[in-house]
Amino acid sequence: MKKNAKKLFVAGNDFKLEHYPASIGDVISREEAKNRLKKIRVELSALQDKMYAHNKYAVLVCLQGMDAAGKDSLVREVFKEFNVRGVVVNSFKTPTTLELQHDYLWRHAVALPEKGKFGVFNRTHYENVLVTRVHPEYLLNERMPGIKAVTDLPKNFWKKRFEQINNFEEHLVNNGTIVFKFFLHLSKEEQRVRLLRRLEKGKHQWKFSVADLSERAHWNDYMHCYEEAIRHTSTDVAPWYALPADDKDICRYLVADILLETLKKYKDIAYPAVSDAVKTHLQQYKEQLEGEV
Amino acid sequence: MKKNAKKLFVAGNDFKLEHYPASIGDVISREEAKNRLKKIRVELSALQDKMYAHNKYAVLVCLQGMDAAGKDSLVREVFKEFNVRGVVVNSFKTPTTLELQHDYLWRHAVALPEKGKFGVFNRTHYENVLVTRVHPEYLLNERMPGIKAVTDLPKNFWKKRFEQINNFEEHLVNNGTIVFKFFLHLSKEEQRVRLLRRLEKGKHQWKFSVADLSERAHWNDYMHCYEEAIRHTSTDVAPWYALPADDKDICRYLVADILLETLKKYKDIAYPAVSDAVKTHLQQYKEQLEGEV
Repeated sequence: MKKNAKKLFVAGNDFKLEHYPASIGDVISREEAKNRLKKIRVELSALQDKMYAHNKYAVLVCLQGMDAAGKDSLVREVFKEFNVRGVVVNSFKTPTTLELQHDYLWRHAVALPEKGKFGVFNRTHYENVLVTRVHPEYLLNERMPGIKAVTDLPKNFWKKRFEQINNFEEHLVNNGTIVFKFFLHLSKEEQRVRLLRRLEKGKHQWKFSVADLSERAHWNDYMHCYEEAIRHTSTDVAPWYALPADDKDICRYLVADILLETLKKYKDIAYPAVSDAVKTHLQQYKEQLEGEV
Repeated sequence: MKKNAKKLFVAGNDFKLEHYPASIGDVISREEAKNRLKKIRVELSALQDKMYAHNKYAVLVCLQGMDAAGKDSLVREVFKEFNVRGVVVNSFKTPTTLELQHDYLWRHAVALPEKGKFGVFNRTHYENVLVTRVHPEYLLNERMPGIKAVTDLPKNFWKKRFEQINNFEEHLVNNGTIVFKFFLHLSKEEQRVRLLRRLEKGKHQWKFSVADLSERAHWNDYMHCYEEAIRHTSTDVAPWYALPADDKDICRYLVADILLETLKKYKDIAYPAVSDAVKTHLQQYKEQLEGEV
């Protein structure tokens, strides 16, 4: 993309899905996207090495999207050149009994990346305003005080959650975690094609789940919830990017590009200086080792 | 290496370091090792994808070796083709206050890889019979009942620890974790060269730590403890491999080769079959999706 073209994908408070394309295959070719990704991920890997050594920032990459939006393969491709030491990927499934003993953000907080590392959330804390909003009966498992039935939910319930999420992320950013949020915008038609492909015999057939179809039936509900969530949680410190996901190569390239261009702005990231203690005795250490022969 | 040549590196109950070379540069060239590693890691990555889907085994890769033995760069190179989703790397440093509230194996157990994933321990639970044996005063931080001073340690203390570690690993293996233990055998002279290189100005100078030199002063103690530990804990279910580490390329290749050749023996590892529920309704799902147009 041209410089700053990626700004086109930043979602604002007036976010509407229809203004964000699911495909931009006419703007950039798959081949071109692939080539650019290859170059960018080498640069990203070098930057990661430096961030690991610098050990002051953590990076949190949040991925949201409907089933078959390409989240898994995006992780594989974008981080292909990374030293595995520096990336931790978390997929959040149905909450466990232990997790339900805590508030809904707890398990995400526990999984946050440590300083120097990249953490990838494949599905994120946003599921708490997406899947649980489409299926509010799930909320009852959280056993919140005063809420015995779905009808007990106060009117401003979701707005409160958006605020809580914004506060959570602001806290992270203010304490050295750089937060990226990517919505992989897949068209309903492309999901249909991909689910059909999963049903074909092959090594990916096992990935097909009946839930894929039942959730697809709630497509419009999901789109509404995504719009609402993105509108209320795209903040200056942690903006959402709504990326075209119908073409996987282009989507991966955009994610990598946004990561690299944003992280490059942190001019303070550098290999650490040698400690004063070591510096003072450097010559002595050298002589000690050299004199051993 | 020729088939089974890697068996040469398996350590037995009569393990003596002097029988295991720190360098085998005369047997295989660096170039050749590099080329083989490139091929092997592509195969390993394919196997990892299958193991992730299969979701029944976990793999634990334990790396031990003196400072500058090349553990970090080995992790980077051996797992270069892996999907980052499937590998979690843990480096164990000085135990924290919380960790010292538990027995010495606890923090390692907590960090074990889940099913379907590879876990790498960069330094491992063996530090509990290495660094703490060279510096037994560290043991006092563990506040074991009856042990107020180093002189309180019973005669069979280390033998007991070896047994406990063997039991721990046997438990893991019996429950689906495949355990690899690699000792990176670095010569004292090569460490000298590498530490001197760290002292040179450059992006890796920050890695130099004064502790590198003070621990080097205990070289012979460490070698004795390694011999003892490997001798007592190289078991049928979790053997030790003592690998030549003076040449990094060769060492990395050997690790990758041993991983691949061993894992290939697990013939049951396969992509999961489609569930019966899905199978029964496959045609119906297809028609449902196709009929949507």
